[in-house]
Amino acid sequence: MARSYYSPQNLSFLLFEVHELEDLLSSPHFEHLDRQSLEMMLDSAKQMADTFLFPHYEDMDRNEPQLENGNISVHPSVRPYLDAAGEAGWISLTAPLDYDGMQAPGMMNAAANFIFSAANNGAVQLSGLTNSAANLLRSFGTEEQKRYFLPQMFAGKWQGTMALTEPQAGSSLSDVTTSATPRGDGSYLIKGQKIYISGGDYIGAENVVHFVLARIDGAPKGTKGISLFVVPKYRKEGENLVFNDVTVAGLYHKMGQKGSPATHLMYGEKGDCVGHLLGEANRGLAHMFQMMNEARIAVGIGASAIASAAYYASLEFAHQRPQGRPLNNKDLNMDQVTIINHPDVRRMLLMQKAITEGSMSLGLQAAHYADKIDVSEGEEKEHYQMLLDILTPVVKTYPSEMAIQSISQGMQILGGGGFCKDFPLENYYRDIRIYAIYEGTTGIQSQDLLGRKVTMKNGLALQLLSAEILQTMTDARTFDELKPYAALLEENMGRIQQVLTHLMPFAMKGDVERYLADANLFMELTGITLIAWQWLKQATKAKQALVNGAQGSDAEFYQSKLHTMRYFFHYEVPKSLGLTHRLLDATTLTLVEESDTVFI
Amino acid sequence: MARSYYSPQNLSFLLFEVHELEDLLSSPHFEHLDRQSLEMMLDSAKQMADTFLFPHYEDMDRNEPQLENGNISVHPSVRPYLDAAGEAGWISLTAPLDYDGMQAPGMMNAAANFIFSAANNGAVQLSGLTNSAANLLRSFGTEEQKRYFLPQMFAGKWQGTMALTEPQAGSSLSDVTTSATPRGDGSYLIKGQKIYISGGDYIGAENVVHFVLARIDGAPKGTKGISLFVVPKYRKEGENLVFNDVTVAGLYHKMGQKGSPATHLMYGEKGDCVGHLLGEANRGLAHMFQMMNEARIAVGIGASAIASAAYYASLEFAHQRPQGRPLNNKDLNMDQVTIINHPDVRRMLLMQKAITEGSMSLGLQAAHYADKIDVSEGEEKEHYQMLLDILTPVVKTYPSEMAIQSISQGMQILGGGGFCKDFPLENYYRDIRIYAIYEGTTGIQSQDLLGRKVTMKNGLALQLLSAEILQTMTDARTFDELKPYAALLEENMGRIQQVLTHLMPFAMKGDVERYLADANLFMELTGITLIAWQWLKQATKAKQALVNGAQGSDAEFYQSKLHTMRYFFHYEVPKSLGLTHRLLDATTLTLVEESDTVFI
Repeated sequence: MARSYYSPQNLSFLLFEVHELEDLLSSPHFEHLDRQSLEMMLDSAKQMADTFLFPHYEDMDRNEPQLENGNISVHPSVRPYLDAAGEAGWISLTAPLDYDGMQAPGMMNAAANFIFSAANNGAVQLSGLTNSAANLLRSFGTEEQKRYFLPQMFAGKWQGTMALTEPQAGSSLSDVTTSATPRGDGSYLIKGQKIYISGGDYIGAENVVHFVLARIDGAPKGTKGISLFVVPKYRKEGENLVFNDVTVAGLYHKMGQKGSPATHLMYGEKGDCVGHLLGEANRGLAHMFQMMNEARIAVGIGASAIASAAYYASLEFAHQRPQGRPLNNKDLNMDQVTIINHPDVRRMLLMQKAITEGSMSLGLQAAHYADKIDVSEGEEKEHYQMLLDILTPVVKTYPSEMAIQSISQGMQILGGGGFCKDFPLENYYRDIRIYAIYEGTTGIQSQDLLGRKVTMKNGLALQLLSAEILQTMTDARTFDELKPYAALLEENMGRIQQVLTHLMPFAMKGDVERYLADANLFMELTGITLIAWQWLKQATKAKQALVNGAQGSDAEFYQSKLHTMRYFFHYEVPKSLGLTHRLLDATTLTLVEESDTVFI
Repeated sequence: MARSYYSPQNLSFLLFEVHELEDLLSSPHFEHLDRQSLEMMLDSAKQMADTFLFPHYEDMDRNEPQLENGNISVHPSVRPYLDAAGEAGWISLTAPLDYDGMQAPGMMNAAANFIFSAANNGAVQLSGLTNSAANLLRSFGTEEQKRYFLPQMFAGKWQGTMALTEPQAGSSLSDVTTSATPRGDGSYLIKGQKIYISGGDYIGAENVVHFVLARIDGAPKGTKGISLFVVPKYRKEGENLVFNDVTVAGLYHKMGQKGSPATHLMYGEKGDCVGHLLGEANRGLAHMFQMMNEARIAVGIGASAIASAAYYASLEFAHQRPQGRPLNNKDLNMDQVTIINHPDVRRMLLMQKAITEGSMSLGLQAAHYADKIDVSEGEEKEHYQMLLDILTPVVKTYPSEMAIQSISQGMQILGGGGFCKDFPLENYYRDIRIYAIYEGTTGIQSQDLLGRKVTMKNGLALQLLSAEILQTMTDARTFDELKPYAALLEENMGRIQQVLTHLMPFAMKGDVERYLADANLFMELTGITLIAWQWLKQATKAKQALVNGAQGSDAEFYQSKLHTMRYFFHYEVPKSLGLTHRLLDATTLTLVEESDTVFI
C-alpha cells in the first residue's frame, strides 16, 4: 500500500467543523450543492490524486523537463493528469454553471489544491495556474474572450500562466519594461522578456495563454503605467491558430518541483506578438493582483500540503524503525523500541503536525473569507475583503517558511536516510524551498503586511481581524481547559499592538525604511499569532465534539487536536518573546547609512 | 575571476588575534614553526583549494559517484586532489616529524579544513577522513601498523573510513552486531554490515583502511562489548596485497555532497575478512571516540566553511544585482539600486556573516583547546580536556544547524535564482543539510551535552567553561562600548544556570526521559550563548586593534566585526528568551505515557 500523504479526516474536520463550509451552501449561489456532493468531491479528488499524481511524484523528480530546439518536454504523466483533471472538472471547479463550471465554493478549490499538492506538487502547479488564469479572464475578459479561451483552459488543453517577472526588474514591478504598441485595431504588439514563468511552455500544451504585464507606449513610469494583456502562444486568425511569436529562451534547472517547467520567454522577438488588453489600461497591476492574491493563497495551501506529505512519510518511518531504548530503561535484554517512543522524535513529529495542520487551517480561513466575499454584499462584503487582504501575505508566508523547518525536522527523523534519494523526505525538502520565493518573496510579503495591509484604512483590517480572533477566544473560554490558551493568544495580540505602537511613529514621519527594516520579524510574530488563533479555533471545536460525546477513534482524533494545540502554544508561541524583544529594540543595524562598510 | 569563498583576512584574525595561535609556538613541540611558516601554510592551502578543489565543485555535484559491478567511480578530480594533498603534506599536517608529518598545531589543520571545505566540501571529506583515521592509528596502532599504514594514508593513496553505523542499529551503537571471531593468530574474522560509510570504497583508492566497531565473540552486550578493529580492503600476505572480503553492497544517492561516495559495505560475506584489534578489547567505543570527536569538530568547521562560501556568493550577488529603490526615496527617475542597499537584504547578509564567523570562531576555540591538551600536563591538561569535551557537541551542532538557516537566507537573497542550478546557492543548500545528521545527529549531540557533558564530574566542565567566558567578559569590559554586550552575555549564562536548576531534580531522581526531553532546546540556548561569547571575544580584539590605531581597510575590517557582533546580540541572542521560557515550562508534551494516540 502506498503511504499516506494527508488525512481525509483532518481535512473534513477543517472544512466542515472549523470553517463551517456547510453554512455557505445556504447561499443561492451554491443551491445546487449539498454536504453529500461536497464529500463526494473530496473523495473523487483523493482518487484523482491517488491515480494520476502520487504514483508519478518520484519519477517526475528524477526526469526533469528538457529543452531541445526551443521545445520543452515534460514528464509523460503530465498530459494524462491534465486531461483527467479537465474532464473531471477540477480546473473549472469554481467557474459558473453557465460556463460549464462546477460553481463550487473556493474552499473546495483550496481543498482539492491541498490534496493534489500533497500528492504531487509539481504537476498540480500547471492545473492551478490555468485555473487562476481562467478566473482572471472571467473577471476582466470580454464575453467573446471568455467563450473562446475558457473551454480550452477548463479542459486542461490550454495552459495559463502569469508573466510578471523580468530579467532587469525581479520583484520590482515598477521597472517592468515589456512594451505594448497599439496596432490600431484595438490589439497591441507585445515585446519583452519574462523570466521564471512556471508552465510557460511545454510539449503537450496545445496552446499557452499568457497573462502578461506590459507598458503601453507612452504610459506613465512605475506601477501606474502597467497594463494587463492576454497573449496566447498561438493566436486565432480566421479559423486557424497561427504562431504568435512567443518563444522559449531558456529553461531553468530547479532544485526541486521538477514537474512543471520554469521558463524564460521572449515575446515578440520577430515583432509579431499580438496581445489584447484586459480590463483598463494602466490598471494592469491592480487587475493582476486578483490572480496574484489567489496564487499567494494557493502557495500557502500548497506549502502546508507538502508539509503534510512529509509529516506522514516521517510518521510512517518513526512507527516502523526500531532503534535504541527508552531513556528511563536502557535494558539491553529488551528489543529496541521504534523511534516514535523517543521524546525527541515525538517533539519533531508534533512540530510537523502543528505546523502542517495550523497552516492548513489558516489557508482555509482565507478561502472561507474569499467565499464570504462572493456571497455577501455592501459593507459585509467589504469587511470580508479587508480580512482576506490582511490575511493573504501571512497565508503565503508562514506555511512556506515554516514548512521548510517542518520538513527539515521530518528529514532529521529519518537520520542518514533523510539525506538520501532512497527515502522520500529529501524530495519534499527540495520542493518546498521555492514556496518562500515565488509569488512574492517573504521580504515582499512582509513589506506588504506591515507597509500596506496593517496601515490601510487607518488599520481597519487589523481591527476586523482582532474582532474575529476575540470571537475565537470567547468561544474557547467556555471551556476551562482552554482558558489558559486563550490568555496566551491574547498576550500575543497585545505584543503585536505594542510593536505597532513602537513602530508607527516612524511611518508617520515618513521614515519607511526604518518602519519596515524588520518587517520580516513582524511577519513572523504575526504568523505565529494567527496560527495560534487557528489552533485555538480547532481546539474549541475538538473540545465541543468531546463534550458532545465523541467516542472511539473520533475521540482520539479530537484528543490529538488538543494535544497538538498545546504543543503549538508551549513550543512555538514562546518564539514571540524574542521577536517582540527585537522589534521593540531601538538599535538599528541594517540601514545603509549606519553600516556602509559592514560587508567585508 | 572566480568568486571568493572565504576571507583570508578573517581567518588570520581568528587564528592569530582571537585564538592566539602564535603563543602556542613557544611549546617545544612546535619549535620548528614560526608565524611566517604558518602564514605560508595558509597561503598554500588557499592555492591548493583554488587549484584542485573550487574549480571542480559544481561539476562534481552534476556528476555523482556511480556504482557498477561493485565498483564505485568518483569524479575525475578526486584522484589529482588527493595526490596533491598527500604530496603537500595536508593529510599528515599534525603528524609527528618522525612519521614525516608536519607536526603543526591542530588549529592549522582546522584552518586548512575550513579553506578546503569552503572550496569543495565533498572532496575534502575524503582527505579529512583519512587524516582522522591516521590519527586514530597513531594513538592505538602498534609501531608496525603505523609504519605500514601511515605512509600510504598520508600520501592520500589509501583511504581511511570510520565504520560504525549498522542497518539495524543506526545511532544506537549498543546494538552493533558486527562480529569478530578470533583466528588464533591474534587476528579476527570480521563479519557484518555497515551503512552510510563515507569514502567506503571508490576506484582510485589503492586500498581502503576501515576502522570498524565490532563485537568479539562472547563480549558483553551493549557498548561495553564493542571493540575497534582495523580492517583494510586489501590485506598484506607476504609481499602481496590480497582482497580482504570487504564488498560494496550499495551506494546511496545523496541530495548533496556528491564528491564523496556514501556506501553500504559488507565485511566477510565469504568468511574471509581479517581485522586486527586496535587498543583494548571491549574499549572500542571509547577509542573510536577520539576519531568521532575529531570528526565532530571537523563537521562544525566544515559547516561554517559552507556557510562562508554561501555568504560570499550571496554577497557578490547583492553587490551586483540592481533591483528596486530605497524605501525612503522611490523616485522612478532614479536608476534602480543594487539590492545590498535594502535593509532586509542587509539583515540577511548580516545574519549569514554573524553565523559564519561566529561558528568559525567557536570551531577554532575547540581546536585551540585540543592544541593546549597536546602541549600541557597534569591538571592543566585535564582542564583543557574538559573544556574540549563540553564544547564538542556544540561545535558540531550550532554551525551545522545554523548554517542551514544561514544558507537558506543566502538563497533567499538570490530570489528565483537561488532555487536554480544556474546559480551557486542551491548547491550549498543541498550540501549543508547532512551536517546536522552525520557524526551524530543533533538529537544525539544534545543528549550528549545535557546528559553527559554538563553533569560529568559534578559539572566541572561547565564551571571551567564559565570561567573562560567570565574572562572574556572581563576583557570586554575594559571598553565602555562593549559593556552592554558583556551584560547580555552574562544574562544568558544566568539563563543556562536557571534552566539547569529547573531540570537537575529530574536527573537526580533518575527521570532521564524528562530531564532530556527538550535537550535540543537546551543545545540551542547553549549554542547561542557560546557564539555570543565568541563574538564578544572577537569584538574585544577588534576594539583593541582600533584603539591601537588600526587604519584604512584594517579599521574597516575591525568596525565590521563590531557591527556584526552587534547584529548577533540584537537579533540572535533574543531567541534565548523563548527557549528559556519553554525550558522552564512545567508542561511536558512529548513523553510517551501522556500522548499515546497523538499521531493521527
